[in-house]
Amino acid sequence: MVFSSKLIEDAVQEFSKLPGIGKKTALRMVLQLLKMETESVDSFTTAISRMRNEIQFCKQCHNVSDGDTCTICSSPGRNKTQVCVVENIRDVIAIESTQQYNGLYHLLGGILSPLDGIGPEQLNIASLQARVKDGVEELIMALSPTIEGDTTVYYIAKQVAELPVKITTIARGIAFGGELEYADEMTLARSIAKRLPIENYVSVKKL
Amino acid sequence: MVFSSKLIEDAVQEFSKLPGIGKKTALRMVLQLLKMETESVDSFTTAISRMRNEIQFCKQCHNVSDGDTCTICSSPGRNKTQVCVVENIRDVIAIESTQQYNGLYHLLGGILSPLDGIGPEQLNIASLQARVKDGVEELIMALSPTIEGDTTVYYIAKQVAELPVKITTIARGIAFGGELEYADEMTLARSIAKRLPIENYVSVKKL
Repeated sequence: MVFSSKLIEDAVQEFSKLPGIGKKTALRMVLQLLKMETESVDSFTTAISRMRNEIQFCKQCHNVSDGDTCTICSSPGRNKTQVCVVENIRDVIAIESTQQYNGLYHLLGGILSPLDGIGPEQLNIASLQARVKDGVEELIMALSPTIEGDTTVYYIAKQVAELPVKITTIARGIAFGGELEYADEMTLARSIAKRLPIENYVSVKKL
Repeated sequence: MVFSSKLIEDAVQEFSKLPGIGKKTALRMVLQLLKMETESVDSFTTAISRMRNEIQFCKQCHNVSDGDTCTICSSPGRNKTQVCVVENIRDVIAIESTQQYNGLYHLLGGILSPLDGIGPEQLNIASLQARVKDGVEELIMALSPTIEGDTTVYYIAKQVAELPVKITTIARGIAFGGELEYADEMTLARSIAKRLPIENYVSVKKL
């Protein structure tokens, strides 16, 4: 692409560094910003700058936070004995959006993956252990259903084996609206093995 | 989507104002920016701020420009007797990227569309007329092949009818790689009516 303006070219260049944004999409965004009021563009760039410069990580659960403790950890209404262990921020947003979970979280910052050089030291596992020692009663493992995810679950379970904590994992099975015939064999086999009495099916109770 | 951080929420909100960006894509971008170095994010926001605040429009062709005359209009190597009339910046970038055109441009800023309230006064037509009077020899019309585009071409042709300027339009026809059977009837009929001797087909000479 040939630009007649260095200003436009630079902005397109910066946008194309974002994931999934090619040159054409970047140009469309830049031209849209060009059409917007100066004030709107200012509020766009300010929101991004502030986000990057002022964001903190919760000292308890490692979630992104506007202060040193996140709003979830500091909320008096939440069940502090239950901790849902997830990989990253995106998982927290997904679970929070269901509005069905009222406990706390713990963000590992990834999962164990020796091939990528991610061992227990790279993850927030020591701080999880400390939280369990401080009296957490249940760890709900909500990690990806992959070999790495399962390895991570087992590793954590071993680390807290001596402590009086219950470890559960989120249910795997056929998704709502999913067609049986397209489900993979593992999922289908497991969903039969782990079948539930019908009363559990019809009502989803808030935890 | 439920965010536990107002900083993240604001940034996602701002991103979703861009065209074609939903909440999920916006979140992906924000999380990517969060992972980037503070300096990279600064150069991202600075490029956008500068682009919006410092951009000018060329006083001759109305293209975006870093100064009061754009690099194309001020380039000594370009043919100043030829002016390609286009709708917007995107068209200039598309034509410049072919590296086959060496004349100047004139950006109308849109096309005539009475239904949307766009009449000749809303477009850069008066300044085009002035440029033609100043000695442009050929106007190459590169507007959309729609009723509005054709109307605009005819309107401009009428405005400069008294002046010694040649008016051409870019060729319409079957695209390279396009399959005959999928071409619409108008395009196919026209491409037969306006057929060219084979020597024009095999070599595309730079203008």
